[in-house]
Amino acid sequence: MTLGIDAVTEAARRVLPDDAVITDRARLRTYECDGLAHYRVTPALVVIPPDAASLAAVVRACHEHGVPFVARGSGTGLSGGALPHAEGVLVVTSQMREIREVRPDDQRAVVDPGVINLDVTRAATPGGYYYAPDPSSQQICSIGGNLAENSGGAHCLKYGFTTNHVLAAEFVSPQGDVVRLGTEAPDAPGYDLLGAVIGSEGTLGVVTEATLRLVRLPEEVRTILVGFESTDQAGAATSAIIAAGIVPAAIEMMDALAIEAAEAAVHCNYPDGAGAVLVIELDGPAVEVEAEYAEVERLCGEHGAFEQRLATDPADRALIWKGRKSAFAAVGRISPDYIVQDGVIPRTALPEVLTAIAEVSRSSGVRVANVFHAGDGNLHPLVLFDDSVEGAGDAAEEVSGAILDLCIQHGGSITGEHGVGMDKAKYMPRMYGEEDLDTMQLVRCAFDPGGIANPGKVFPTPRLCGEVPGRHQGPHPLQAAGLAEVF
Amino acid sequence: MTLGIDAVTEAARRVLPDDAVITDRARLRTYECDGLAHYRVTPALVVIPPDAASLAAVVRACHEHGVPFVARGSGTGLSGGALPHAEGVLVVTSQMREIREVRPDDQRAVVDPGVINLDVTRAATPGGYYYAPDPSSQQICSIGGNLAENSGGAHCLKYGFTTNHVLAAEFVSPQGDVVRLGTEAPDAPGYDLLGAVIGSEGTLGVVTEATLRLVRLPEEVRTILVGFESTDQAGAATSAIIAAGIVPAAIEMMDALAIEAAEAAVHCNYPDGAGAVLVIELDGPAVEVEAEYAEVERLCGEHGAFEQRLATDPADRALIWKGRKSAFAAVGRISPDYIVQDGVIPRTALPEVLTAIAEVSRSSGVRVANVFHAGDGNLHPLVLFDDSVEGAGDAAEEVSGAILDLCIQHGGSITGEHGVGMDKAKYMPRMYGEEDLDTMQLVRCAFDPGGIANPGKVFPTPRLCGEVPGRHQGPHPLQAAGLAEVF
Repeated sequence: MTLGIDAVTEAARRVLPDDAVITDRARLRTYECDGLAHYRVTPALVVIPPDAASLAAVVRACHEHGVPFVARGSGTGLSGGALPHAEGVLVVTSQMREIREVRPDDQRAVVDPGVINLDVTRAATPGGYYYAPDPSSQQICSIGGNLAENSGGAHCLKYGFTTNHVLAAEFVSPQGDVVRLGTEAPDAPGYDLLGAVIGSEGTLGVVTEATLRLVRLPEEVRTILVGFESTDQAGAATSAIIAAGIVPAAIEMMDALAIEAAEAAVHCNYPDGAGAVLVIELDGPAVEVEAEYAEVERLCGEHGAFEQRLATDPADRALIWKGRKSAFAAVGRISPDYIVQDGVIPRTALPEVLTAIAEVSRSSGVRVANVFHAGDGNLHPLVLFDDSVEGAGDAAEEVSGAILDLCIQHGGSITGEHGVGMDKAKYMPRMYGEEDLDTMQLVRCAFDPGGIANPGKVFPTPRLCGEVPGRHQGPHPLQAAGLAEVF
Repeated sequence: MTLGIDAVTEAARRVLPDDAVITDRARLRTYECDGLAHYRVTPALVVIPPDAASLAAVVRACHEHGVPFVARGSGTGLSGGALPHAEGVLVVTSQMREIREVRPDDQRAVVDPGVINLDVTRAATPGGYYYAPDPSSQQICSIGGNLAENSGGAHCLKYGFTTNHVLAAEFVSPQGDVVRLGTEAPDAPGYDLLGAVIGSEGTLGVVTEATLRLVRLPEEVRTILVGFESTDQAGAATSAIIAAGIVPAAIEMMDALAIEAAEAAVHCNYPDGAGAVLVIELDGPAVEVEAEYAEVERLCGEHGAFEQRLATDPADRALIWKGRKSAFAAVGRISPDYIVQDGVIPRTALPEVLTAIAEVSRSSGVRVANVFHAGDGNLHPLVLFDDSVEGAGDAAEEVSGAILDLCIQHGGSITGEHGVGMDKAKYMPRMYGEEDLDTMQLVRCAFDPGGIANPGKVFPTPRLCGEVPGRHQGPHPLQAAGLAEVF
């Protein structure tokens, strides 16, 4: 493998400026992890290409020499999706950061993969538009990373995930080919490969340009902070709001422990003594927001809200959101270590699953703070522990896994928006049958027969492509053709 | 091939009741075309399986014996996507027609592929919900066909296409494996193969069950018929409405010739002397619809509307829609023959493209009636001709093709919702580069290396799977492995 990486390094030096090819061990180490810092691997080479052509040239060299590569945007991912490969190349897109077009009339923006999420909104706002997907990390995360992970955010409930906001993309395949996926037209003919690539976590190739859909800025936004005695009440209020046909831009829930942490960290002034709060945001035409607000207020009251506070100005609104958005980091104030879990359940199962999580917490003695996108059933339990206590880390891991099992049992998913990455590949067989995973593997092998694009991520047991079995007449054609030996 | 079809017939007889295996020539001929009747091919065998297991068994037999198969729902498609293969099996899903679950609380329905589109809405309405995608054929078209073609309808503008309303599916691969695609959770981990399968026109396999998203019935619906002097005015009004941030459930446009045809056929009482009409539908909370209606009325007035008529009751509303929905068939009243074209342009290019279509019509002497989903730029030009006049059919074909070229030139697409099928495969290279098509072909070969699933559809030159070239280091691995000879 050493020879391969040397050849790729040479090829990279031919197409890239000196400072875009990093081989110095100390500098390489600064790229050893993404937002999930408990996995660390130093890459063999880091490249920071300024454009798609040079990025494709490096990938082509990887293909020719059988060297793995991992793409990385801002490295804010929480599932280890951008964890480097020890014998591979880390392809960093941070220098590809031009906003190429903003066309408010067509509601489109065309951007490089390294463009920061919030910068798209900043560029579109003067024209009356914004980019809807808003992960908590939106001030630093990149559009390329958002596409790789199909990022969500607090406003997914109304506006959907990244996949609902990307119309077309330029894409470098694991062979180093530059292809176009999707079109700006609705319902592009042929296969929707763009949809398959979005959320594929870098295992099918690297997006080098994205055409994004812009959303019109709403005429009015109202943010409401509602205090309840219990998560049961808050969950019931959430269900009642959705059942009434209202789709708020966001409904976020935090339980007592999460509130305590946020309060300690950012003094967000949430209702005293609340067992749960909802942050509800309504947006749209003023007349609609007005009517929905009245209904939401009534429904929260009916379900036991003891305090309802409407944000009076942008500063007040920002403070309400600050409490919610800082919750993950804030937990550091009340616990030396914690795991951020990410799972999904059908919204209707919310009370049942919250009760079950409380029971797991009680019986294991491991504290769990709940912060989540209540509207679409996307849980973010924070599992607290102290790593200096022997066995505490393992106990926390066990509770964290048990919560995922609860999600699966209730017809949910092992990830709502953080992705599978390195972290959850082992859970994939709990969600999918072997034949379902084999079908995904077929696509992976079609794009990347050499298995060099972000290997070891997403899928549990990285099989050689020749080993995907043909299940009804002996070996699969690829295998029959001796393809397994080609690689 | 004769031997192969005999073996598949035998296999089918083993798993299916007698009347579900059709080999009689006269009965086979009743399946010779779909809604695009100018292509006709009699299949070698028709099977009508009652369930997924027997359907999979037939497909497995096709795989074992290298026999092509084509899936067919109600046969209402307009691109020849369900055109049979002369040496293959037509797999008809019309007997798989159970609505398995309707769960209003979760906004979900689980249905068989042969279920009629409108029947999903009928089943959901008592619970306060409906199924949003509404092709004009919704009274007879099947959900399986809708998935295959990613069907749209008049209300796509607000509600999106079929792909936006399917959460999960059971799917029979071209090897006869039964797999699950997608989950009910938002953002399912792994590849979004469901997205790739929806709209793949039967070339990746057959969906045998679909989990659909239900949409809440709106509190209020207002349907407005607006008369303009010209399509330019109507187009400008459409743009102004969208630019004002209003997303109507539908904005449909018909030009003078289309109005004339509809009037002759169904006496829909459209405004006298209109050069164009818009049918605008607003839905949602009453208070929102009220406010939007005032704005729409004002904007239409500003852009030259000489008559605006609000439907006063359901019968009146139905009559307005009857004019629009009958437009295709109605054209038969004013022309012995016609081609229904289907193309898409960015909405902002509407006036320019309409002018160009008028110019093509004028210079060729071929009449074109325009009916379309104006809100999302999905044109349905009806190209009129008399097949008894020599050369008229060819001239109409030429005009029809020129219209597609106009769509492509303006950054649009060769199909908005009818699909590529048999009819438009030849246009695919005008929309996509060779490498883009090769990338789709990789996925096709991954699912269907033998090329037996609806061969000859969607893609222009059906290459053998081994022939997808590896573009940078000699032959593709599949080819290097001699795979081309395996088939």
